[in-house]
Amino acid sequence: MLSALFKPRAVAVIGASNNRLSIGNRIVQNLLDYGYKGLVFPVHPKDPVTLGLKTHASILDIPGPVDVAHMAIPAKSAPAAMEECGQKGVRFVIINSAGFRETGPEGAELEARTLENARKHGVRIMGPNCQGVICSDPGVRTYCNFTFTYPEPGNVAIAAQSGGVGEVINQRFSELGIGVHMYASNGNACDVSIPEIIRYWGTLDAVKVIVVYVESLPDPAAFLEAAAEVAARKPILGMKAGRTAEGAKAAASHTGGLLKTDASVDLVFDKAGVVRLRTQEELVQAAYALSTQPAPKGPRVGIITNTGGPAIIAVDELVEAGLELAPLSESRQAALGGKLHPAASVGNPVDVLATAGAGDFRAALDALLAEDACDSVFMNVVTPFFVDNEVVAREIAAAAQKGLKPVVVNLMTDRRRWVEPVRVLKEAGVPHYALAETAARALAAMAEYARLRSRKACGDNAAGACEPAGFTDMDLAAARGILEDAPVDEHGFLSQKDAYRLLDAGRIPAVPHAWVASPEEAAAAAGALGYPVAIKADAPGLVHKSEAGALALDLADEEALRRELRRMVKVFGGDRPSFLVQRFMAGGTEVIVGASSVPMLGHAVMFGLGGVFVEVLKDVRFKLAPVGDSEALDMIRSIKGFPVLAGARGRTSVCIEALAAIIRRISQMVVALPRIRELDLNPILAFGDAALVADARIRR
Amino acid sequence: MLSALFKPRAVAVIGASNNRLSIGNRIVQNLLDYGYKGLVFPVHPKDPVTLGLKTHASILDIPGPVDVAHMAIPAKSAPAAMEECGQKGVRFVIINSAGFRETGPEGAELEARTLENARKHGVRIMGPNCQGVICSDPGVRTYCNFTFTYPEPGNVAIAAQSGGVGEVINQRFSELGIGVHMYASNGNACDVSIPEIIRYWGTLDAVKVIVVYVESLPDPAAFLEAAAEVAARKPILGMKAGRTAEGAKAAASHTGGLLKTDASVDLVFDKAGVVRLRTQEELVQAAYALSTQPAPKGPRVGIITNTGGPAIIAVDELVEAGLELAPLSESRQAALGGKLHPAASVGNPVDVLATAGAGDFRAALDALLAEDACDSVFMNVVTPFFVDNEVVAREIAAAAQKGLKPVVVNLMTDRRRWVEPVRVLKEAGVPHYALAETAARALAAMAEYARLRSRKACGDNAAGACEPAGFTDMDLAAARGILEDAPVDEHGFLSQKDAYRLLDAGRIPAVPHAWVASPEEAAAAAGALGYPVAIKADAPGLVHKSEAGALALDLADEEALRRELRRMVKVFGGDRPSFLVQRFMAGGTEVIVGASSVPMLGHAVMFGLGGVFVEVLKDVRFKLAPVGDSEALDMIRSIKGFPVLAGARGRTSVCIEALAAIIRRISQMVVALPRIRELDLNPILAFGDAALVADARIRR
Repeated sequence: MLSALFKPRAVAVIGASNNRLSIGNRIVQNLLDYGYKGLVFPVHPKDPVTLGLKTHASILDIPGPVDVAHMAIPAKSAPAAMEECGQKGVRFVIINSAGFRETGPEGAELEARTLENARKHGVRIMGPNCQGVICSDPGVRTYCNFTFTYPEPGNVAIAAQSGGVGEVINQRFSELGIGVHMYASNGNACDVSIPEIIRYWGTLDAVKVIVVYVESLPDPAAFLEAAAEVAARKPILGMKAGRTAEGAKAAASHTGGLLKTDASVDLVFDKAGVVRLRTQEELVQAAYALSTQPAPKGPRVGIITNTGGPAIIAVDELVEAGLELAPLSESRQAALGGKLHPAASVGNPVDVLATAGAGDFRAALDALLAEDACDSVFMNVVTPFFVDNEVVAREIAAAAQKGLKPVVVNLMTDRRRWVEPVRVLKEAGVPHYALAETAARALAAMAEYARLRSRKACGDNAAGACEPAGFTDMDLAAARGILEDAPVDEHGFLSQKDAYRLLDAGRIPAVPHAWVASPEEAAAAAGALGYPVAIKADAPGLVHKSEAGALALDLADEEALRRELRRMVKVFGGDRPSFLVQRFMAGGTEVIVGASSVPMLGHAVMFGLGGVFVEVLKDVRFKLAPVGDSEALDMIRSIKGFPVLAGARGRTSVCIEALAAIIRRISQMVVALPRIRELDLNPILAFGDAALVADARIRR
Repeated sequence: MLSALFKPRAVAVIGASNNRLSIGNRIVQNLLDYGYKGLVFPVHPKDPVTLGLKTHASILDIPGPVDVAHMAIPAKSAPAAMEECGQKGVRFVIINSAGFRETGPEGAELEARTLENARKHGVRIMGPNCQGVICSDPGVRTYCNFTFTYPEPGNVAIAAQSGGVGEVINQRFSELGIGVHMYASNGNACDVSIPEIIRYWGTLDAVKVIVVYVESLPDPAAFLEAAAEVAARKPILGMKAGRTAEGAKAAASHTGGLLKTDASVDLVFDKAGVVRLRTQEELVQAAYALSTQPAPKGPRVGIITNTGGPAIIAVDELVEAGLELAPLSESRQAALGGKLHPAASVGNPVDVLATAGAGDFRAALDALLAEDACDSVFMNVVTPFFVDNEVVAREIAAAAQKGLKPVVVNLMTDRRRWVEPVRVLKEAGVPHYALAETAARALAAMAEYARLRSRKACGDNAAGACEPAGFTDMDLAAARGILEDAPVDEHGFLSQKDAYRLLDAGRIPAVPHAWVASPEEAAAAAGALGYPVAIKADAPGLVHKSEAGALALDLADEEALRRELRRMVKVFGGDRPSFLVQRFMAGGTEVIVGASSVPMLGHAVMFGLGGVFVEVLKDVRFKLAPVGDSEALDMIRSIKGFPVLAGARGRTSVCIEALAAIIRRISQMVVALPRIRELDLNPILAFGDAALVADARIRR
C-alpha cells in the first residue's frame, strides 16, 4: 500500500539546495518547518550542508533506508537518478520537476524511460510534474511538497489532479480551522493514481471524508471501482472542472490529455456514489460537515431559529437543494410550546425568538432530535448581546454530541468578539457556518451522500460487488448470434429486421408487426394485425426513413397500403425487398431509450421523452450500465418532462414500470453484448399498461 | 430628505438604562463605542446618569435640538412618548421596541396611534420593531442601532427589511474588510420606507453601491420608481428571500404581511434594473467589486492565470454566468508571446506560468486592457514562494488603477503570510477574492448591472422617465369603448366576438375569420376564406371550447362544415347564435401571449411556447408593462424552447419581429386599458412571415 509514501521513515531530496528560491530548498524547509518526525537527507553534488542538514553527494551515500526520495532536478536527469534510487532501494520517488509528458513527445519519452527504470527496481513514482504529499499525523508530520499551507491534524483527506486547486482547497480548510489528515497531488500520474490513493484512504480509520478534485479520469473504470468500494464506507466528495465546453477546452490543454466529456465523469461519480459538488467552497464545507457529524437518514430537516430573515433564506436553500421541511407532530408541537416563550413559533421552522436562552434552544433541539419525522437539524443562531451565548453553545453541543442525527449551525456572530461559543461548538464537533446558504448546502451534501449510499444498500447499484438482479427470460446467446452474424451497412448499422430480432431475443416488447416482401404478404399481415397500419422499407443504409420517403403512417385500409407499398417497392425494393408492416397505434406517448458505448466504461444507457423534449431541450438522463431498478426509475422520474408521463393536465399516465423494464433489459443486453456500439429505440410508444418499441436502430 | 436621520446632530435615547442587557443601554453604549460625533442624551425617569452621561427625566428637558430619538420602551407607552417627541421638535424617531403591528390588531392600533401623533407634529418614524441606522462617515459616526457590528468607512450602503439578515450582511462586509457608508433596517416600516432610503442614497456621492434585502415589497410601485431612478446612476444589488413556496410561507409569517409572490418581485427588480443575487455572499462580493471598479462595457472577459486548474474553474463559472471568453487578435497574441516565457499560453486564458514575475503579469494585463474585444479582466494569481508577489501585486494595481476596464483578482494565498500583496491590492481598490468561483460571480454581477443599465440607455425600459415608442395605428379609444360596453359572463369574460373586436382595434393580426349566425352565412364565409376551415361556438361561459365540444377543426368542405355547425347550433345556438368561422391554418408554431393585472403594479405581460412547453415546463417569461422593444425580444429569446422558434432541427424559423410586435401591442393596450384583468392569446400561430392570433380570451 501507500503507507510508506505518506508516512516515510526517511526522505531524501535530490536537488536540495541552499538557494531559497528553489523547489529543492523549499521541500527541505517545509519538512523542517512542519516538524517532520523522520530523517531528512538532502542530496546535492557539491554542497556539504543544506539548511543545516548534512548533505550527501549521491543518494547512494545515504546511510540506512530511504522510503521517499524527491526529485527536484531537470527532467533530463531523471532516468539516471531513478536508476540510483532503484539501487538504493527507495520505495517511492516524488518527481516534482516538470518537463515530462506535459511538454510533448520528448518529455513523454523521458517520462517513459524514468518509469521503466523505476519498474525495474520496484520503485513507485508519484508524479512527475506534481506537488507531492502531506500527512498531518502528529507521529509523522510529512510535508513532501513545495507549497505553503500547513494543515492541522484532522480527518479529511484531499486528492487533487491539479496542484493549484488542491492547494486552494487545503488553504481553505486551514483558514476555517478544519483539520486535514492527508493530502496528495500526483500531477502527470504516470504510476501512483488517484484511484489507488482513494483505495488506500478507504483502509485508514483516521480518514473520515475524502475530497477529490479532477479535470479528467485517465482510467475511469479503475476510478469507478475504487470509488464505489470506498464510498460505501465513507463519503467521497468530488469536484470536476471543465463543465462547460470552454472549461473543458481549457482543461484539455492543461492536463495535456484526451478530452473526456464532463458527462462521462458525472456518470462515474453517480455510479460510484461520489457526491459531486459545484464549487470549491461547497466541497470544503460539505467535507467539514461530514467529518464531524453522521449522515442523515433521509431528506427531512427540522429548523430552529432565533431570527426571522435568515430562517427564510435557509428554507429557500434547503428546499431548492432537495430537502424537505420535517412535519412536526401536533403533540410534539404542543409539548414544545409549553417550554418556549408564548410568542415562539413551534411549527417548522421553530422560532425560539431573539430572547431565547440556552434552555429554549435545548428544548427545541431535543424535540427535533426526538421527532421520528425529522432526519437532521439546521440551527440558525444569532448572538444577541443580552443572551449568554456561550451557555447556548454548550447546550447545543451537549445535545448534538449524542450523535443521533446531524446538527449543523449557522452561527451569525462576530467571531472576533464571541470567541467562546465558536470554541465550544468546534470542540464538540458541531459544524458551524457564517451564512445560512453555506450551512444549508453542506447539509444538503450530507443528505445526498446518504441517498447515494442507501441506493447502494438496496443492492442495485452495480459498480461495486453487487449486480442488479437480471431478467432470466432473455435469450442472450441468440441475441449474440444475431449481432455477430448480421450484415451491417458502411456505418455499422444492422438491418431493421435484425434489430427487431435482437430485441425480440431480449424479450423487449415491440408494436405488433410482421416482415413482408410483397403487396400480397403485406395485405395478409395487415389484415391479421388490424388497420390502421404503418409500413417502413428496410433497405441498407436507410436510417432516416421519414426523410427518404421510406415510411408511411396511418394507412386506413388495404387500398392505401397497396398504393404506398407499390411506391416503396419501386424505390427501395432492390433484390431482396423487405418491409415492416406495423399496427399504427395512436395515443401513445413517445419516449426514447438508447445505449452507447463509452470508452473504458462499457455503456451508458439513456432515457428521455421524444420530440421537442429530446431535440430542443436535451431532456434526457444517462446512467452507466448495469442499471439497477431504482436507478431506472430515477432516470424516468428525474427528467423535466416527467409530468407528461405522470399524467399532467389531463393526459393519461403511462406505465412507468414497463419503461423501467425496457431500460433494464437494454442495460442487461449491452453488458452481455459489448460489441453493440449504439442502440436507439426511438420512439417507444408508452401507454397506460405497456410500452412498445416502434422503431429501432442498432449499430455494431 | 433623510439626512438628519443618518447624520443627526443630537440623539436622545428614550428608555436608556444602566442595565447592560437592555436595548436602551446597548444603543447608548454603541453610540459611545463607535465614536458618535454628536450629542447623546439618555432619557430615563429616575436615573440621573447613564453610562457616564447626564440623563434627563423627559425628552422635553433636553437643552437644544434633538434630530433623532430612539424609543426603547414598551409599545403601549409609544403614543404618549411620540407626543412628547413632537413637542420637542424631534425630526426622526427610531422605534426599536416590538409589540406593534407584527403582534396583531392591538399592536396595529398602537402603531397607528403612534404614527398619528408623529404626523401631527411632522415627526418621521423609522420602524417600529426595527434596528435603526448606522453611518460610518468619520465626521458623524452614527450608530443608532443595538447590534454589534461596527462598519469601517466605505462606499456601500445596506438597506434590509430583516434586521437579522442585514446584520449578517454587515458582518460579512466587516469580516472582509470592506467599508460600509450607511446601514438601515426599518422593521415594520410604518413611515420611512426602503424606496425613500434608496432615493436618498441615490443623491449621495459617498454611496457608490446599494445593497437591498427584502422579503416582500409593501409598495412595489414606489420601489420600482425609486429603484429605477437610482439604478440608472449607481448599482443596486437586490436579494429577495422566499423564492420557494416553503420560504415564501416562512416569509409571510415573519413579516406578518401579505404574501407577495416572488415572481412579482423579480418583475420589479428586472424592470428597475436591480441586479438580483441568490445568496448573501454573492450580494456582498458583487458589492465589493462594484464599489471599487467600473462596470464592464460588455460580456467578454480576458483571463490571466499562473496556474492551470483554477483557470478551468474560473472559465466554467464565468461561462455559466453568461460571460464570454474574449477572442484575442492574432497580432495581440503574437506581441504578448514575445514578452512572456516561450511555454506560456497566449490565447485566452493567458497562462503566464507559475514562474511568472511582475513583468509577465503586467504585460498580460496591459495587453488585455488594450484589447478592444475584451471588456473585463479576471486574474488568477497564486503566490509561489519563489516569486516576489508584492511586486506582482503592485504591477497589477498600477495597471488596474487606470480604471479603463474592471479587473478582479482571485488571489490564492495564505493571507496570514502574504500580507503585503493583499494590502497593495486593497489600497489600490482592486477587488481580490480567495476562490475563483467567488471572483467569477462578482464579475458576472458587474456585467449584469452593465447589461441592465445599457438596456435602459437604449430608451425602452420604461420604469423611469423614458416611455417606449408606442404604435400609432392602434385605436385605443375604440378598444376602450368595446371593453367598457361589452357584456361579460359571471367570471368577467368578454364574448369571443368582443375579444376579437378589441384585438382588431389594436391592429393585432388574427387568423382570417368571419362571424356567422347560420349555416348559410357560415358556408358563404368559408367559401370566401377558403377551405379547410375551423368553427367555434361563441356562447356565454364557453371558455374551454375543446372540452365542451364547441370547436371543430380542419373541416375540408362545405358538407363537413354544415354537419358540425348543425350539431353546434343544437347545443350552443340559444337566442343569438354566434359562430366563428376561421381559416384552418396548418404548420404554424403555437405560441402564447398573455397579460394579467398585478396588484399595485399595472400588468405583467407573458410570452411562451404553447403545448407541453407551457403546460409541463412552465417555459414562459413575464415582464411588467410597458414592455420595450428589446425587452420583448429578450422575452422571446430567453425561453428554453427558443430553438423551436429559431428553426431547430429542420423546423421553419418563425418571424420573431411579428411576435415582438404582438407583445408590445398587448403591452400598450393593457397600459391604456387598466380594466383588462386578464388577456390570453392562446394559441398564436407563428409562421415565417407573420404571427396570427387563433384564439383569444379577455377578462374585465
